[in-house]
Amino acid sequence: MAGETLRSEIREQPEALLRLLEHRAELEGVARALRKRDARVVRMVGHGSSDNAASYGVYAFGLLAGWTALRDSISLSVYYGAEIDVAGSAVVALSQSGRTPDVVAYVERARRRGAFTVAVTNDPGSELARAADAVLPLAAGPERSIAATKTYTNQLAALALLAASVGGRDREVGEGLRAVSAQMAELIDPVERAVPAVAVAFAFVGRMFVVGRGLELATAREVALKLIETCRVAAEPLTATDLAHGPVAALDPLFPVWVIASHDESLPAALEAAARAREAGAALIASGNAADAIEGAAYRLPTPVAPDRVLAPLLSVVPGQLFAWALAQAKGLDPDRPAGLAKVTLAP
Amino acid sequence: MAGETLRSEIREQPEALLRLLEHRAELEGVARALRKRDARVVRMVGHGSSDNAASYGVYAFGLLAGWTALRDSISLSVYYGAEIDVAGSAVVALSQSGRTPDVVAYVERARRRGAFTVAVTNDPGSELARAADAVLPLAAGPERSIAATKTYTNQLAALALLAASVGGRDREVGEGLRAVSAQMAELIDPVERAVPAVAVAFAFVGRMFVVGRGLELATAREVALKLIETCRVAAEPLTATDLAHGPVAALDPLFPVWVIASHDESLPAALEAAARAREAGAALIASGNAADAIEGAAYRLPTPVAPDRVLAPLLSVVPGQLFAWALAQAKGLDPDRPAGLAKVTLAP
Repeated sequence: MAGETLRSEIREQPEALLRLLEHRAELEGVARALRKRDARVVRMVGHGSSDNAASYGVYAFGLLAGWTALRDSISLSVYYGAEIDVAGSAVVALSQSGRTPDVVAYVERARRRGAFTVAVTNDPGSELARAADAVLPLAAGPERSIAATKTYTNQLAALALLAASVGGRDREVGEGLRAVSAQMAELIDPVERAVPAVAVAFAFVGRMFVVGRGLELATAREVALKLIETCRVAAEPLTATDLAHGPVAALDPLFPVWVIASHDESLPAALEAAARAREAGAALIASGNAADAIEGAAYRLPTPVAPDRVLAPLLSVVPGQLFAWALAQAKGLDPDRPAGLAKVTLAP
Repeated sequence: MAGETLRSEIREQPEALLRLLEHRAELEGVARALRKRDARVVRMVGHGSSDNAASYGVYAFGLLAGWTALRDSISLSVYYGAEIDVAGSAVVALSQSGRTPDVVAYVERARRRGAFTVAVTNDPGSELARAADAVLPLAAGPERSIAATKTYTNQLAALALLAASVGGRDREVGEGLRAVSAQMAELIDPVERAVPAVAVAFAFVGRMFVVGRGLELATAREVALKLIETCRVAAEPLTATDLAHGPVAALDPLFPVWVIASHDESLPAALEAAARAREAGAALIASGNAADAIEGAAYRLPTPVAPDRVLAPLLSVVPGQLFAWALAQAKGLDPDRPAGLAKVTLAP
């Protein structure tokens, strides 16, 4: 059946998360090395879903460790050869396959220039793993679907655990992730049953905004990417604030807006964005653990409240993954075989 | 005439740039302060066009000063209250009006926590200017169009000059900007005559990707934003590499791709992205000073080669601005009055 690979990997996520938790010792070893060097600036690199996970890493390191984590420019160093002092920094390179050429090149160069480099990859025998000082295995098991799902949620979990270990909160976050795995397992069946009916209403939609802020910006970016690659929808991720700075002018009733809202300090901004989108006549889909707080949503795909606000994005991405799976089928597309994509992107 | 305000402000850019160059002494003063503190990490904040200018700042500071500049998360500090050590950092806050509430709040908090804060604003008497340690006036003159143009190019110039001053290359970059002003003045008339014919072909386009890499990522983001806010096109900016990591799957002949290509180290990636888009059947628009290097483009809007590769984005954005102005009219929209937008965004 079309989409069976994607569906089975979405369903594997709770189990994949538990497998990652078996690697706590490696994570703590890397965290010790980071603390010892007092890095404080963490340069994250990756493309596609890995870059979306890095968006989450900004918040995980900021909130759990008080460190500055940034999505570094690969082209600035790899292509332009900028002479930036990276000796005091840590590098966290994210790549499911461990074979993304410019990510490997970035790590090799940063390591030569004195940075402490960590590869977060699903293949601990990969070129990226060999290039880095330390390796954190994603332990998600083989991912055969071109659209990443379980490696994305395990990247979020690995970043949360690493940041928590640096900040001395690893026990608490580790227990939280175990609880999230159970919440995710309960969430998947009802959402899988709910999404086909929503997808039918969007079968002819060609464009969409996906809005999140703060911790949920990563979710907005990842849901948009799933919709682009599996459903050929021009789905653009925006922060709740970006929407008001221009894009709101493009909205009309045929331009749906997906808002991911969670109960945390970013909620007022998400609610404000939803209200503006609704005023502009856009149809709203609401997800996240505060989905019920969004007034006038045409569709809601709520998620349970995670034990810690920092872990909410592991749950809030699930309805987006399942919606993309269902929408591809409503559009007559095979989400396991997106046009023009390979699992490992070797082009520049 | 609809769009007259936008058009006249686009045409004012060469002159606005020369006005900024009269403020070299202030720029050098701020650069001295940054050097003295040996900041090395520059946290840039802004929304909309100002955030696009910050994308450029990453490269300007990296290439001209060897410093790390990052687009910092406003929500991480302002909403979540993350306890990040910013005492050694510099903050460059970008806001045309100087009234964007969360940018002001970010600066107030960072200054209290020991960062050296610089306001880059078109209103040196604004709240943002009062909140910061130092002010760099954009000197663009009043901007009445809701879509930013001359304040954007002056933000790029201010960031280039500031980074060049930090890196001891201010004389060279200052002279380069003077030359760019003259190149821009020669460019505007022919591009303004060329864009209406291209715009007619895109009158019914509802979505588009705008691709740039490296220095031209800022241009891609800014051109996409102009198209979204004035033409109601779902235009998504992507790096040349992002395109291959998913979005290429969405392309078809009704989904045009705008590629900004300049003669620098990022050109191979831009050419590769253009080739992939063409293989997927997308109609290509090529701009930038390497527009002629893009094979099979349906339309070309080339720009002259700037005296320094770092200054290319000041020229390459101009065809995008003028195209947005022309496309709005082809679509029967008034680009001076985008639906639902105000010049100063006061909402969160």
